[in-house]
Amino acid sequence: MGVVVQTIPRADPEVIRRLGAAGVATVHEAQGRTGLMGASMRPIQQDAGIAGSAVTISAPPGDNWMIHVAIEQLQEGDIMVLAPTAPCDMGYFGDLLATSAMARGCRALVIDAGVRDTADLRRMGFLVWSTAISAQGTVKETVGSVNVPVVCAGALVTPGDVIVADDDGVCVVPRQDAMDTLAGAEKRLAAEEDKRKRLASGELGLDIYDMRGRLAEKGLTYV
Amino acid sequence: MGVVVQTIPRADPEVIRRLGAAGVATVHEAQGRTGLMGASMRPIQQDAGIAGSAVTISAPPGDNWMIHVAIEQLQEGDIMVLAPTAPCDMGYFGDLLATSAMARGCRALVIDAGVRDTADLRRMGFLVWSTAISAQGTVKETVGSVNVPVVCAGALVTPGDVIVADDDGVCVVPRQDAMDTLAGAEKRLAAEEDKRKRLASGELGLDIYDMRGRLAEKGLTYV
Amino acid sequence: MGVVVQTIPRADPEVIRRLGAAGVATVHEAQGRTGLMGASMRPIQQDAGIAGSAVTISAPPGDNWMIHVAIEQLQEGDIMVLAPTAPCDMGYFGDLLATSAMARGCRALVIDAGVRDTADLRRMGFLVWSTAISAQGTVKETVGSVNVPVVCAGALVTPGDVIVADDDGVCVVPRQDAMDTLAGAEKRLAAEEDKRKRLASGELGLDIYDMRGRLAEKGLTYV
Amino acid sequence: MGVVVQTIPRADPEVIRRLGAAGVATVHEAQGRTGLMGASMRPIQQDAGIAGSAVTISAPPGDNWMIHVAIEQLQEGDIMVLAPTAPCDMGYFGDLLATSAMARGCRALVIDAGVRDTADLRRMGFLVWSTAISAQGTVKETVGSVNVPVVCAGALVTPGDVIVADDDGVCVVPRQDAMDTLAGAEKRLAAEEDKRKRLASGELGLDIYDMRGRLAEKGLTYV
Amino acid sequence: MGVVVQTIPRADPEVIRRLGAAGVATVHEAQGRTGLMGASMRPIQQDAGIAGSAVTISAPPGDNWMIHVAIEQLQEGDIMVLAPTAPCDMGYFGDLLATSAMARGCRALVIDAGVRDTADLRRMGFLVWSTAISAQGTVKETVGSVNVPVVCAGALVTPGDVIVADDDGVCVVPRQDAMDTLAGAEKRLAAEEDKRKRLASGELGLDIYDMRGRLAEKGLTYV
Amino acid sequence: MGVVVQTIPRADPEVIRRLGAAGVATVHEAQGRTGLMGASMRPIQQDAGIAGSAVTISAPPGDNWMIHVAIEQLQEGDIMVLAPTAPCDMGYFGDLLATSAMARGCRALVIDAGVRDTADLRRMGFLVWSTAISAQGTVKETVGSVNVPVVCAGALVTPGDVIVADDDGVCVVPRQDAMDTLAGAEKRLAAEEDKRKRLASGELGLDIYDMRGRLAEKGLTYV
Repeated sequence: MGVVVQTIPRADPEVIRRLGAAGVATVHEAQGRTGLMGASMRPIQQDAGIAGSAVTISAPPGDNWMIHVAIEQLQEGDIMVLAPTAPCDMGYFGDLLATSAMARGCRALVIDAGVRDTADLRRMGFLVWSTAISAQGTVKETVGSVNVPVVCAGALVTPGDVIVADDDGVCVVPRQDAMDTLAGAEKRLAAEEDKRKRLASGELGLDIYDMRGRLAEKGLTYV
Repeated sequence: MGVVVQTIPRADPEVIRRLGAAGVATVHEAQGRTGLMGASMRPIQQDAGIAGSAVTISAPPGDNWMIHVAIEQLQEGDIMVLAPTAPCDMGYFGDLLATSAMARGCRALVIDAGVRDTADLRRMGFLVWSTAISAQGTVKETVGSVNVPVVCAGALVTPGDVIVADDDGVCVVPRQDAMDTLAGAEKRLAAEEDKRKRLASGELGLDIYDMRGRLAEKGLTYV
Repeated sequence: MGVVVQTIPRADPEVIRRLGAAGVATVHEAQGRTGLMGASMRPIQQDAGIAGSAVTISAPPGDNWMIHVAIEQLQEGDIMVLAPTAPCDMGYFGDLLATSAMARGCRALVIDAGVRDTADLRRMGFLVWSTAISAQGTVKETVGSVNVPVVCAGALVTPGDVIVADDDGVCVVPRQDAMDTLAGAEKRLAAEEDKRKRLASGELGLDIYDMRGRLAEKGLTYV
Repeated sequence: MGVVVQTIPRADPEVIRRLGAAGVATVHEAQGRTGLMGASMRPIQQDAGIAGSAVTISAPPGDNWMIHVAIEQLQEGDIMVLAPTAPCDMGYFGDLLATSAMARGCRALVIDAGVRDTADLRRMGFLVWSTAISAQGTVKETVGSVNVPVVCAGALVTPGDVIVADDDGVCVVPRQDAMDTLAGAEKRLAAEEDKRKRLASGELGLDIYDMRGRLAEKGLTYV
Repeated sequence: MGVVVQTIPRADPEVIRRLGAAGVATVHEAQGRTGLMGASMRPIQQDAGIAGSAVTISAPPGDNWMIHVAIEQLQEGDIMVLAPTAPCDMGYFGDLLATSAMARGCRALVIDAGVRDTADLRRMGFLVWSTAISAQGTVKETVGSVNVPVVCAGALVTPGDVIVADDDGVCVVPRQDAMDTLAGAEKRLAAEEDKRKRLASGELGLDIYDMRGRLAEKGLTYV
Repeated sequence: MGVVVQTIPRADPEVIRRLGAAGVATVHEAQGRTGLMGASMRPIQQDAGIAGSAVTISAPPGDNWMIHVAIEQLQEGDIMVLAPTAPCDMGYFGDLLATSAMARGCRALVIDAGVRDTADLRRMGFLVWSTAISAQGTVKETVGSVNVPVVCAGALVTPGDVIVADDDGVCVVPRQDAMDTLAGAEKRLAAEEDKRKRLASGELGLDIYDMRGRLAEKGLTYV
């Protein structure tokens, strides 16, 4: 029943790069607070971020066969996104698969399951966001699909969507919204810069955002 | 319905500083094993500790408006303690709010919810203990309260209590007990120093604490 | 009711050392994907691994008395493995107990419960894998047992089994299987070396492992 | 930013009814093991099942305003499906809203959050599948959307999809697949009837499904 | 270190009775959405509710000694509320203790830990809300306290507070607020009666609560 | 790699029956508070108990093939105990397999994973204790083992051990200890009967167990 979609559209590399520079929190805000994966999706490394085009993998629980299939579909700058068809914390991915993915220009994995060889992966500079770390091995018995829409950690991912990931988590930007979201994100960054200076100088958010009246109206009282 | 208490008592700064130096495990023991927040309260940084006076925030789930209100109440050395009125893992706090809090002399947040911009927060040296990391944005629609008693990660916090936090978690010292607790903690530290030397030299706890008789009495047998 | 078994068999130190060098993921594969503790068992340090002989501790929830008893039984290279008789996240172990254990040549603890003084433990180079971090103190009221079989994080551990632990988790190698498992592990490592080179050069797993035929047979289709 | 889609397609009522009669496990199998919500989605009643057309609700955490909006869109036989935009276990729904929904012919709710008045809901015969039970009240401050695609308990739900729910959980059947899935489900039910008789008479699955050869081939040995 | 407070104030029995009749969701709303225990606190029986005065128990993890002490302090209509000093899911309470409590007029227990003999407890009509069910036995080695303030499932309980519990969970009403909360609750019940009739007749909440204008203002659009 | 052990010893049927009558809490106490499975193991039915001989199944995650193999090994009065080799909440077992098991005289399943067709199973009187309920289907691709020792929900189960299960959970009695444990259990039941009468008449546990002196000694004070 499995299918591999071999041709997927991707967003503009420069747009992707700048979405990555904006970071997860800003991008998530810029697209109306949508697209965020759940808080159980955590990085195995610290202080690192990336953005790329999603190559999606729908895999049976405890079966990593489809990762081999997916690697053939990878292009420079892609990020693999794996969602198991049932909850599973086994270690689908390790340093050999990372070596293979890197040979094709992929530098990151987002997986709603477990990974292993985490010390090696950090050493290699291959970035991972996962919901578990586990040495538990998987089998290669049942086919799944590559480049079909998947739900990963509660977020819908369509192949070619832009994945933005950093220490705060992972956000999915639908490919067709990438430019608009980037525009919104960069506008936010510029506005934040000004606010950061005012706040650092001791000015209060209460005044900068003119909140006092509305707080009083809602019934906040000072004693 | 919200209220902001503008004047709260605080413990002596030197007592607070020395409680911080003693650390969470020692302070918790010194006050009869009370006041510890639950183990889900984790630092976003490693190998850092602090102590300060609690400025408390009771906030609706997914609404960070009261943090702006609380920042105005901060004094040098305070720690913000936020408890949502229902469980919530959203990202209430990021680098802009930290910038504002630092401008008022606050250097840490303890929150039974999520934070974001965690890489930036580490870079800024603003310390955070939280129960989640999430980029998920919050709204500013419903008022809460500042400087009322709150239950945070299972521990009761009264405004002005001393918060001690390090890699082991977070402990609350009721303000009026701060000096007694400090005395007990420093006594423990001194006693531990001696025991550390004896244990390092190979002497056994079984002998130092004279446990063999009582163990036999309780029925422990060696085979 | 407690019992302390004073004499346990141990595996050959060189075999243990090489199992540690092979690492958890490889060792787990080499023994037919058995013996792995659950994914909730996590290290308090990063990028460190070890192997040693299990000295087991069965302790009541919230009672760390038996650790003192166990330390007397430790030999150079042992690893303590503590399983509470009911789920418990309290802090059974801290820097004083680590000092005592290190004086006897033990350098690691695996515990299906909590530890404290984690910053100190990292500083001392004492390695810990635990299911919680908590400053919560324990009592010394009820006896347990030392060197009896225990179930720790879902894995059966018999005293003298080889414990292999690294960033990916903890794996138990039954003592009598240690040499066979090592042989299998080192064979895997050698084979992986060759595959790593081929994958790094861009060859695909699909071809190296000759998967295409079987995938087609199972119904995988490309579109 | 919220939107209410007022016209959605629905599947044929007789197809929906028969999917409900087939039950979750059978329907899930019939559509290739897809569409199942996660196991945290549990009924508040026992031994009851239903099927209906999904009217979807995307709601902010802790804000049930959109349920009022959704009720106006309900038709006879619809099932409301609510997904919060961030994890939330508050009680979005109780007996008053159920009264209103029943007045429009809706008899069930599927919600990835909490409900309250559960004893009343059971008494009224209004069926609920939820991920929490909680009396915690919600606000009406922020708009969401009605009849947009949502991810609920890990499953994608498009408005008008057929929801099948019983004691085993909740399964989503894409509207356009409803007839094919029903055909597959009823074929399975017929086949199961025959197998049930043979198994009840003592015949073994090993023989009925002719498994012995393939088991031996895979290396299963009897001792 | 333990203490037993032998005299505690209690609310008026008729006020307590009527709070119980109003139920958890209504009472929680009537006191400004405060006092609710977390959603992990679940009944072991279905479709039963109660209210009573809290006799509180602070007990060490895995040690039920203080329940014997607390039973002596019980009066007709009291509800025992037990909070362990560290998380624990062991079975603190069974049919013998229930027999003893019932002999003193107590008919319910609220416990942030486990209970056992649950089938017997249901048969006896002794009501329990707990965070776990477990046969795991406890010891009687360490003292705790009776009738001191405790934090139970995230809610602060002062001895003599009114506990209201039903299928939706458990709510704590501070004793001194009991009459005001009751007045608010009964006012809500009366108002709900009218609304229930209007909703049952098909009138919409959108119209009854006059929401359409404010929804439009907040940007909700219909398509 | 799988193996099926065809001949296992079983305990005396009358001993098994009486252990079942004693119930989980009593049996667990009688064998020194050992053998209990974790509290996540819950019945799908209410107010029912059973005891039987364990036929164990070690199965890959998401693969129920070995259940068919195990059914052939069942004898009158056996209970199947399934432990997956990695955590898995999929639905391994439903009404067809139950029909087959019942044809061989087996009336219960204990499974550290999910089951489905739960309404049917209750209707058939087939008892189940599981850690999940899920319709999620499994495959038949990888062999496991039957009648080998397994760790199920944290408890070690050797084939032929007596499984005692009721509303409080599941307890494992090693076959060779069955008679001793029964003797202890029935002695406890007799002793409890007397205590139940005394407690029902209002006598306090404090007096029956003569606790007052020891409580005072441990420092309990009354105020």
